[in-house]
Amino acid sequence: MKFHTEYLWFNTKRKKEIVPITSDVEGIVGKSGVREGFALVSAMHITASVFVNDEEVGLWDDIMQWAENVAPEGKDYKHHHTGESNADAHLKRILFGHQVFLPITNGKLDLGPWERIFYGEFDGQRKKRVIVKVFGE
Amino acid sequence: MKFHTEYLWFNTKRKKEIVPITSDVEGIVGKSGVREGFALVSAMHITASVFVNDEEVGLWDDIMQWAENVAPEGKDYKHHHTGESNADAHLKRILFGHQVFLPITNGKLDLGPWERIFYGEFDGQRKKRVIVKVFGE
Amino acid sequence: MKFHTEYLWFNTKRKKEIVPITSDVEGIVGKSGVREGFALVSAMHITASVFVNDEEVGLWDDIMQWAENVAPEGKDYKHHHTGESNADAHLKRILFGHQVFLPITNGKLDLGPWERIFYGEFDGQRKKRVIVKVFGE
Repeated sequence: MKFHTEYLWFNTKRKKEIVPITSDVEGIVGKSGVREGFALVSAMHITASVFVNDEEVGLWDDIMQWAENVAPEGKDYKHHHTGESNADAHLKRILFGHQVFLPITNGKLDLGPWERIFYGEFDGQRKKRVIVKVFGE
Repeated sequence: MKFHTEYLWFNTKRKKEIVPITSDVEGIVGKSGVREGFALVSAMHITASVFVNDEEVGLWDDIMQWAENVAPEGKDYKHHHTGESNADAHLKRILFGHQVFLPITNGKLDLGPWERIFYGEFDGQRKKRVIVKVFGE
Repeated sequence: MKFHTEYLWFNTKRKKEIVPITSDVEGIVGKSGVREGFALVSAMHITASVFVNDEEVGLWDDIMQWAENVAPEGKDYKHHHTGESNADAHLKRILFGHQVFLPITNGKLDLGPWERIFYGEFDGQRKKRVIVKVFGE
């Protein structure tokens, strides 16, 4: 059984941003040598997420606007009494989920025709990590 | 270590529908011969989901109505400028999550007393797939 | 390959409650002897969740208030025609997700600096279980 662990680093220009990471994950799967197995892709910071959806920039705007509607910034959250101002980003991580677990079949990510992997940043402009941990044979 | 991969196909009659798939997944786990391990069940289309909840048709209506409230159809989404009309289905997939990872103990799905597995279709009436990938010993 | 399965039991004093479980999961990972692998932590009851977020009590209040806003208790849900009164708790489980899959590297949970694991109870005051299933080498 092989295990292969790498970390992707992010430091987004904007505070909230969707970043495509499919090719990064594919590269790590390739390096792992795993032909049959899985890859965990998980945001290590609690104001960010990882999800699988569509590579379409208009939809990305819809997704971020929807996140804002469902878990709005700037409300009087109790978390802000600690000096923080990012409670909404914690809620958005819950809304999106923070990790995906991707099947590998015949040496490749076994994704559907339109499935692409994204990092969702909700409190950026600073360094953050995503773990990619591959295992299998 | 065994790996066993199958695909479930769906083509729902209605555009939005909840489909019970526990017995399908149990059948695949049985065929895999895995006694100790896990099964990934993951929707391969980006307007569908997989989740674990209750086998109660009244609740299914509640769930679908709630999905509509939180991620409504028919709004002026930017994604629709591409000719698509299903942005809400992409959002619903994020809301529900698109995959579950199920423990297998003593040759059976190790689920709680009421846990049942469902495919959530948000833009159906066409062919779609779910991957079921089992591994273990 | 090692597999190690344990169950955590909960019986919360309040109906809705967030319970920190990081040290419980760490203890199980330690007992498993796994140095390289993963731990699944999954709520076995369909009105509870498991998620990874911040160890900050003010934020926990924000999270529970937000859950109430997005999936409110006390509405006229169809599920309640069965005699149940907890449809909102089923919806909250969907909103939060019910499981996390945690990487283990060098014998320890490979979490980000602020990542902590929580059990989210939405219909408590009775006995419920969480499965922790560890595997690896």
